[in-house]
Amino acid sequence: MNLVAEKASPFKLCGREQKREGTIITIGNTSIGGRQLALMAGPCAVESEDQLFAIATYLKNKGVSILRGGAYKPRTSPYSFQGLEKEGLRLLNRIRRELGLLVITEVLDQFTIDEVAKSCDILQVGSRNMQNYSLLRELGRLDKPVLLKRGMSATVEEWLMAAEYIMSGGNSQVMLCERGIRTFETYTRNTLDLSAVPLIKELSHLPVIVDPSHATGRYSLVPAMCKAAVIAGADGLIVEVHPSPSEALSDGAQSLLPEKFSTLLTELKEVAAFTGKSI
Amino acid sequence: MNLVAEKASPFKLCGREQKREGTIITIGNTSIGGRQLALMAGPCAVESEDQLFAIATYLKNKGVSILRGGAYKPRTSPYSFQGLEKEGLRLLNRIRRELGLLVITEVLDQFTIDEVAKSCDILQVGSRNMQNYSLLRELGRLDKPVLLKRGMSATVEEWLMAAEYIMSGGNSQVMLCERGIRTFETYTRNTLDLSAVPLIKELSHLPVIVDPSHATGRYSLVPAMCKAAVIAGADGLIVEVHPSPSEALSDGAQSLLPEKFSTLLTELKEVAAFTGKSI
Amino acid sequence: MNLVAEKASPFKLCGREQKREGTIITIGNTSIGGRQLALMAGPCAVESEDQLFAIATYLKNKGVSILRGGAYKPRTSPYSFQGLEKEGLRLLNRIRRELGLLVITEVLDQFTIDEVAKSCDILQVGSRNMQNYSLLRELGRLDKPVLLKRGMSATVEEWLMAAEYIMSGGNSQVMLCERGIRTFETYTRNTLDLSAVPLIKELSHLPVIVDPSHATGRYSLVPAMCKAAVIAGADGLIVEVHPSPSEALSDGAQSLLPEKFSTLLTELKEVAAFTGKSI
Amino acid sequence: MNLVAEKASPFKLCGREQKREGTIITIGNTSIGGRQLALMAGPCAVESEDQLFAIATYLKNKGVSILRGGAYKPRTSPYSFQGLEKEGLRLLNRIRRELGLLVITEVLDQFTIDEVAKSCDILQVGSRNMQNYSLLRELGRLDKPVLLKRGMSATVEEWLMAAEYIMSGGNSQVMLCERGIRTFETYTRNTLDLSAVPLIKELSHLPVIVDPSHATGRYSLVPAMCKAAVIAGADGLIVEVHPSPSEALSDGAQSLLPEKFSTLLTELKEVAAFTGKSI
Repeated sequence: MNLVAEKASPFKLCGREQKREGTIITIGNTSIGGRQLALMAGPCAVESEDQLFAIATYLKNKGVSILRGGAYKPRTSPYSFQGLEKEGLRLLNRIRRELGLLVITEVLDQFTIDEVAKSCDILQVGSRNMQNYSLLRELGRLDKPVLLKRGMSATVEEWLMAAEYIMSGGNSQVMLCERGIRTFETYTRNTLDLSAVPLIKELSHLPVIVDPSHATGRYSLVPAMCKAAVIAGADGLIVEVHPSPSEALSDGAQSLLPEKFSTLLTELKEVAAFTGKSI
Repeated sequence: MNLVAEKASPFKLCGREQKREGTIITIGNTSIGGRQLALMAGPCAVESEDQLFAIATYLKNKGVSILRGGAYKPRTSPYSFQGLEKEGLRLLNRIRRELGLLVITEVLDQFTIDEVAKSCDILQVGSRNMQNYSLLRELGRLDKPVLLKRGMSATVEEWLMAAEYIMSGGNSQVMLCERGIRTFETYTRNTLDLSAVPLIKELSHLPVIVDPSHATGRYSLVPAMCKAAVIAGADGLIVEVHPSPSEALSDGAQSLLPEKFSTLLTELKEVAAFTGKSI
Repeated sequence: MNLVAEKASPFKLCGREQKREGTIITIGNTSIGGRQLALMAGPCAVESEDQLFAIATYLKNKGVSILRGGAYKPRTSPYSFQGLEKEGLRLLNRIRRELGLLVITEVLDQFTIDEVAKSCDILQVGSRNMQNYSLLRELGRLDKPVLLKRGMSATVEEWLMAAEYIMSGGNSQVMLCERGIRTFETYTRNTLDLSAVPLIKELSHLPVIVDPSHATGRYSLVPAMCKAAVIAGADGLIVEVHPSPSEALSDGAQSLLPEKFSTLLTELKEVAAFTGKSI
Repeated sequence: MNLVAEKASPFKLCGREQKREGTIITIGNTSIGGRQLALMAGPCAVESEDQLFAIATYLKNKGVSILRGGAYKPRTSPYSFQGLEKEGLRLLNRIRRELGLLVITEVLDQFTIDEVAKSCDILQVGSRNMQNYSLLRELGRLDKPVLLKRGMSATVEEWLMAAEYIMSGGNSQVMLCERGIRTFETYTRNTLDLSAVPLIKELSHLPVIVDPSHATGRYSLVPAMCKAAVIAGADGLIVEVHPSPSEALSDGAQSLLPEKFSTLLTELKEVAAFTGKSI
């Protein structure tokens, strides 16, 4: 077993030893890391104006405050749909203005940081980029929250060190997102490492978000893992919701139908209340 | 992703398709798989009469009904403490008679099945033996419940197939125990695959127990993972409790002190109640 | 990185510190661990008298001295072919008497050790049983060589400790077999850890055999991995050969056709000669 | 097992089906992918003018034609040595002019592609950037060879798809580098997946280089793995050599001393000749 936790912490900025109370990131009326459970929901990718406004309106009516949706999609194959790119960003920005939702979307490289930052409230660093240190350093110069997804085979130590890269640049608004690690199991897309939630809480003062959609890759497992994440101490969830998963341009198998999301939301409010939090 | 679940199930006996309602295993007043949350607690190994009776009395007074404790210990090194063996079984049998607790203990091979079976209420098959098919077949001839731990790198499919080995011998009293899988992460001893709980519930009618002590290897993570397991749908928990973890002959780092276990128990009663179960 | 190698070795019997020169296991005219490259070849399972004698005669004519073939097969599913069992052992014994070949076959449990030992020259412990310590201890009482396959997720340290279990019982004729470890890669059945060969040679004096058939699960990769294993210092190879892979009752995809094996054999003789060994 | 190889290849540009003969990349008098075994050697990082010229002169005198050395180092911690950066590039460029060696060095991001490209003959994409698709696309616009290291937990399919990203941009001079994958084993830094060499040769026409230094993390295992890689079909090797490994600013434990490298070189020439290649 790694005994880093027992030695002097190597985490100079994100370490719990540096700051006993948990970091709370505030964006408008929403705060992440405190008594509010942050709920980020939406489609994997922004696919069209109709799709995005329909799902965004639905989620807003349900009380969700943060919309997720990718304009730039990192895809294994160069021949797969890569996202609507600039057009996707424009649509996300309209969602912010017209519906008043907060938006989280992924940034893929340094060139597009500025335009992505202008079109969203939280920038997401994907798993494949967790150790793209040039990107992390640039994000350290922003004054905007960053959600840092764990790399597919990143240890907790490497993950926290990636947060150090952002923070050492001056941006302390970092939240960590556990999204499953790569293992030998093939029933699930990845293996959700839920014990990382209390472990991070020991080692660091940063908020922790859990992504059960990418972790499991199976919509039927998402509700149970959402509830378990909240009980385990997660500060928020990021969940894929799609009006027609079988037609989704990416990740349909792990997306919840709106009605299933609605049921989940009701349950999550109860679980959050049980833990002394609210949605 | 493995699509076995969508095809005709290869699980002829343990498959959910074969039996829609969940299996309930009843031992005396205790039942596993129904509305009761099964709590198995105790030391990793039976170390002495004093140690065992002290912790067993403590747990009984707290309302725990199933004592765990190893008489035969599978150790990586032949030079490590291997358990009290027959003397350990005698002590466990006295616990059953004198304190009225149910006992679960590990069986390591076919030769000792009978004597182990006489000294306990549930036989545990450890991770290292999950694919010891000769042992599994012999256990199939018993009329006693078996807890089958997941192998360190066993897929869910292999694990359920191991249950088929026991069941096809005639013993349908099988419960599955998720105890963490082996990954690259070194902060934790193993990686608890909590998504296996709802997945098994989809695929099989067998009860699922979670062992957060072996999964995490760190006592500080055990309470959060216990609570998360219950919310995720586990039918029970198996937890290591030791009066003096630093002096334990095995697995001290993952054992809870009695007072920490007591606090956990209070919380677990609330979580169980929240899910409509009782302890 | 694990620094066990730099500390006092925990390997009291198999450790290189205990015995500088490599162990040589001699069976009749064949020796394993010295200047001879041990070649074990044959079908995954003994399927019938005709199949076995045909392939055995072929291999004998090619100069192979050790026939592999399973009479007891550990299968993931209880509903798959489990081997010919006693009948398979009888056939293997006839091969020894009638063709004069040495035979290696798997032993699955303590009950059958004696009858398996009577029918073969080397007992094989499969991956699933690498930490079946009761079996290992019984094998420690035999006066017959044992080939110990690495567990699917066993570390090198655990593997050598398993060898200690056999040796501490009094049997020092142990050889280790690398057969691939379980990883996330799905193109190959397992991932052959060839660096384990020189590592074991540093840490231990025991002979090391490599099984490229099970490691890769693809016959087309077997020749390259056989040759690489020899260059890396392996003392022997165990290779699946089947006259009709597509009709094999198990593991057809990884079996070589006799003519491909013949070509490989020619190449292996050259590689062995290059390293100063002979077949 | 993944059957992609048996279906129509998803690899539109790098697939073997698209081009039966192997790709040969020619740089001056050196060619990679043909009858010459490419040998890239040098320190992990460029540390100083003295260090670099000393080792480069040594390697040139030994007949090595490609020097490796990092100017930009991707380090887990932002507080570790990050490389000499521009000064490192200047030194590498002097090596090219003054010693006539070819140089391979890592490129970390799009911003520095041009300056890195001006200072080297082969651009290296590190493991952490294997799925940094923005970087890959930019490299597709260059007219310079790219060495693409496999990601720590990248499947062979994802790795080849990453090559497609570069090639679909117009740059067909791509070579693949196996450098070990992340597994549970802790004796070695990573697990060298040598079976990936013949597998890639089946699936693709691109040259394959092997990096035993990063794969094993232990200098004592490097020679055996170098030789095994050549026998397995690798088109080249990349090896860390440092005059004083214990004082190296990074990766000392896996670097060979010059005299050990010299011995290895002699052996490699024999192994190369055995396979019909020359160094």
